[in-house]
Amino acid sequence: MPRVVKRPDDRRNEILDAAQALFFERGYERTTVNDVIAQIGISKGGFYHHFSAKEDLLEGITARLAQDAVARVRDLLEDPSLDALARLNGFLARSRQMKVEDAPKLRAAFDVVFRPENLVLYHRINAASIAVMRPVLTGIIAQGKTEGVFAVPDPEAAAEIILHLGASTHDAVARTIAATGTADEDAAIEALDQRLRFYGVAVDRILGLPDGSIPFVEPGFTRAVMTAR
Amino acid sequence: MPRVVKRPDDRRNEILDAAQALFFERGYERTTVNDVIAQIGISKGGFYHHFSAKEDLLEGITARLAQDAVARVRDLLEDPSLDALARLNGFLARSRQMKVEDAPKLRAAFDVVFRPENLVLYHRINAASIAVMRPVLTGIIAQGKTEGVFAVPDPEAAAEIILHLGASTHDAVARTIAATGTADEDAAIEALDQRLRFYGVAVDRILGLPDGSIPFVEPGFTRAVMTAR
Repeated sequence: MPRVVKRPDDRRNEILDAAQALFFERGYERTTVNDVIAQIGISKGGFYHHFSAKEDLLEGITARLAQDAVARVRDLLEDPSLDALARLNGFLARSRQMKVEDAPKLRAAFDVVFRPENLVLYHRINAASIAVMRPVLTGIIAQGKTEGVFAVPDPEAAAEIILHLGASTHDAVARTIAATGTADEDAAIEALDQRLRFYGVAVDRILGLPDGSIPFVEPGFTRAVMTAR
Repeated sequence: MPRVVKRPDDRRNEILDAAQALFFERGYERTTVNDVIAQIGISKGGFYHHFSAKEDLLEGITARLAQDAVARVRDLLEDPSLDALARLNGFLARSRQMKVEDAPKLRAAFDVVFRPENLVLYHRINAASIAVMRPVLTGIIAQGKTEGVFAVPDPEAAAEIILHLGASTHDAVARTIAATGTADEDAAIEALDQRLRFYGVAVDRILGLPDGSIPFVEPGFTRAVMTAR
């Protein structure tokens, strides 16, 4: 039987496809590297050429999902008629829409990633996502600075600060996950909503914009994502 | 020989004292849990009653150092004559002074904590430090809100956001560490200085203050800490 030689990127994507399907089907915890290997019929050596551990798969999946998300808003990012604020708000609105559409999968992923013992995983996923988003956000902020609307000394530094700010919502999200399905659910969702609103205000202010310029939540968004099954 | 029964907190502190001394003397990587156990002559069981791994020791040391730092500025935190902005700036100035005094030890710790493979350790140490600082900063921001000077909806959320913002400087610090002693040293220190200045501006803005209200660096501070040996 002739050996099928795949290009490295194809093989890498094939491994990520299989892992992503298994993680959602069986759960991240109950999936092993051997399951992924068996699913696509490659050797252990072939797997470990691309990834050194199961955690790397989640990081790779995150980077790919972030790249996909950026590709799906490419039209907005490249539309020459948009000023920076419209581009940023359009991008965020589309991201929220995608999150609501994928809410059941997203919520299942949250259940794993926000466990206290998975804090490391959370930070690795966050770093993988920040690496993809940094150039996109830097470009939008640079446009806003050129237009004289965003008041920041250094667009890349502003982008990094804003993206890292996301981690400040970690504990509030974790509390909401813990409260889902209990009597505290409504209060936890309202608290997270407030936190996200203030997160939006912090971003407005870092960019030198009036409060409320960049809405991070709209009515029902937090509930739709956090209670999806 | 009568067995010496120590109170749990005393024993815990004794373990942390020994670990802290060994980490600074031999380096974190070259110190093992067995070294710590041998140094104070306790049983393995006695050690694992308090800590589950070497990483826990660094987290415990960080929390203790943060508590010590807060204790050393207690006078500023409790001085009834200070308004919130003066209290916050006094607290930060004192923190910088302590960092410069401890610069050689701090720089040696940075060498370990900012290695790419120690990102997890960095986040755990950061979380331990944030847990100690959160109530302190929340108190100051609440005072500033009451005085009508800090414009924030929720002092605790503002404190959490500001403390998490610290992690956005991780990569810039890591780059400066890598550049120390090379031809790029001056440029890396200047880049980190700029980043820290913008970090200060981000904090000003999040608190609704004019840019420059809360200086995060003063001339020579970054160089003093980053080039200490």
